[in-house]
Amino acid sequence: MKVFQKEIKLKPKARGFHLVTGEIMGWINEIEDFKTGIFHVFIKHTSAGLTINENADPTVRDDFESHFNEMVPENMPYYKHTAEGPDDMPAHIKASLLGTSLQIPVTNGKLNLGIWQGIYLCEHRDHASGRKLVVTITGEK
Amino acid sequence: MKVFQKEIKLKPKARGFHLVTGEIMGWINEIEDFKTGIFHVFIKHTSAGLTINENADPTVRDDFESHFNEMVPENMPYYKHTAEGPDDMPAHIKASLLGTSLQIPVTNGKLNLGIWQGIYLCEHRDHASGRKLVVTITGEK
Amino acid sequence: MKVFQKEIKLKPKARGFHLVTGEIMGWINEIEDFKTGIFHVFIKHTSAGLTINENADPTVRDDFESHFNEMVPENMPYYKHTAEGPDDMPAHIKASLLGTSLQIPVTNGKLNLGIWQGIYLCEHRDHASGRKLVVTITGEK
Repeated sequence: MKVFQKEIKLKPKARGFHLVTGEIMGWINEIEDFKTGIFHVFIKHTSAGLTINENADPTVRDDFESHFNEMVPENMPYYKHTAEGPDDMPAHIKASLLGTSLQIPVTNGKLNLGIWQGIYLCEHRDHASGRKLVVTITGEK
Repeated sequence: MKVFQKEIKLKPKARGFHLVTGEIMGWINEIEDFKTGIFHVFIKHTSAGLTINENADPTVRDDFESHFNEMVPENMPYYKHTAEGPDDMPAHIKASLLGTSLQIPVTNGKLNLGIWQGIYLCEHRDHASGRKLVVTITGEK
Repeated sequence: MKVFQKEIKLKPKARGFHLVTGEIMGWINEIEDFKTGIFHVFIKHTSAGLTINENADPTVRDDFESHFNEMVPENMPYYKHTAEGPDDMPAHIKASLLGTSLQIPVTNGKLNLGIWQGIYLCEHRDHASGRKLVVTITGEK
C-alpha cells in the first residue's frame, strides 16, 4: 500500500456550483499508478464546499444555487456573525451542509464514479479567490 | 496494510429511507479478515444517498422522509431541471445534503458502529432500480 | 503504511456547536508519527454530529445553532418519533445533515487544515452525556 498527496489550487470561481472533475484530475496523473484504493479530496476553507452530483445538465447546478439560497437565506434576523458581509454566514452554513471532503473509490487507475457523477466545487462567497484542495490517494499499486 | 474492494447492487427500494446494514454486510464477509481499518461505501448515483442513523424505531425513517420533503419540496418555481419529473431535482439536492459515501471504523473484523447506528439507503426517486455501491476496506489484517 | 486507532470520549457538552479540535488532538499524540495520510474521526451516536467550520469567532457557532433550529424545528406535526422528547427527532435529522465522520489530510505529523478551520462537535440533544469518538489514522510513517 502507498500514499500519494498533493496540494492544488483551483482557479477562482463565481458564486455558484461548478463541475470541476476535469480541473482537479488534470493535476493528478499519479492516480494511474493505483490499482485499487480511495481518492480523498479536502477543501481548506470554511465558506466553500465539495459535493458529487449530476455531470450533464448545467441547470442542475443552477437549481442547487437557487435552493441553497432558499434554505440558507442571507440577512436572517438571528445572525450575529455579520461583519464580513451578508454572504458570509450563509456561506459557512452551506459549507457544512455539503461537507469539506469527498472520498471516491479508485479502480484500475481511475475514479470509479457512476456515469452521471461529477465533482462540484460549491462556491458560496460573492468574491472568492482560488480555493486550495489537498488530494490524498491511499491504495495498492 | 491491504485493500479490499467489491461492487454490489442493492435490491430496488421504494422512495424513502431504508435500513440496509444487513443487506450490505451480507455481501462483505471479507471484513472479518481486517483487524483495524476503515470501511468505505460509495453510491454511484446522483438521486440517492447514504447516511447513518437510528437502527431501531422505523418511524425515525418515516420522519426523515417527511422532513426532507419539507426542506426540499417538489415543484419549486425556480427549478429549471424539470424534464425528468417533479421528484428528480429534489432527489439531486437531497442526495448532496446527505452525501455519497460513508466511512466507518473497522475493529476486530467488524464495523465499529454505536449500538443505535445503522446504514440508511436514502432513495429519493419514485421509481428507482437497484442502486450500485462500491465497498472499499483499507486496513491491517 | 500503518493504521492507528483509538476510541475516546469527549466531556459532556451543552446543546449547540463546540470547537473541539484541541480536546480531540490532546488524546492523539500518535499523529506525530505519520508523515502523510488521512485522519478519520467517527462519532458513535445518532443525535450528534461532526463538522468542520470557522475556528475564530464564536458567534459563527451561535448562528449554526440558530439556523439549524430554523431548518429542522421541534414539534413538526408530521413527526411520529416523539417518545424521547421534542429535541430528539430534530437531533437525528441534524446529525445526518452534518454527518457522522470527518476525514482530514495528515501532512508531516499534523492535521493539514486551513488556517480558519476547526472541528465542531454538533450536540443536538438538550441533556447529553459525553460522546464517544473513534479516531483512525492510515498513512506512511
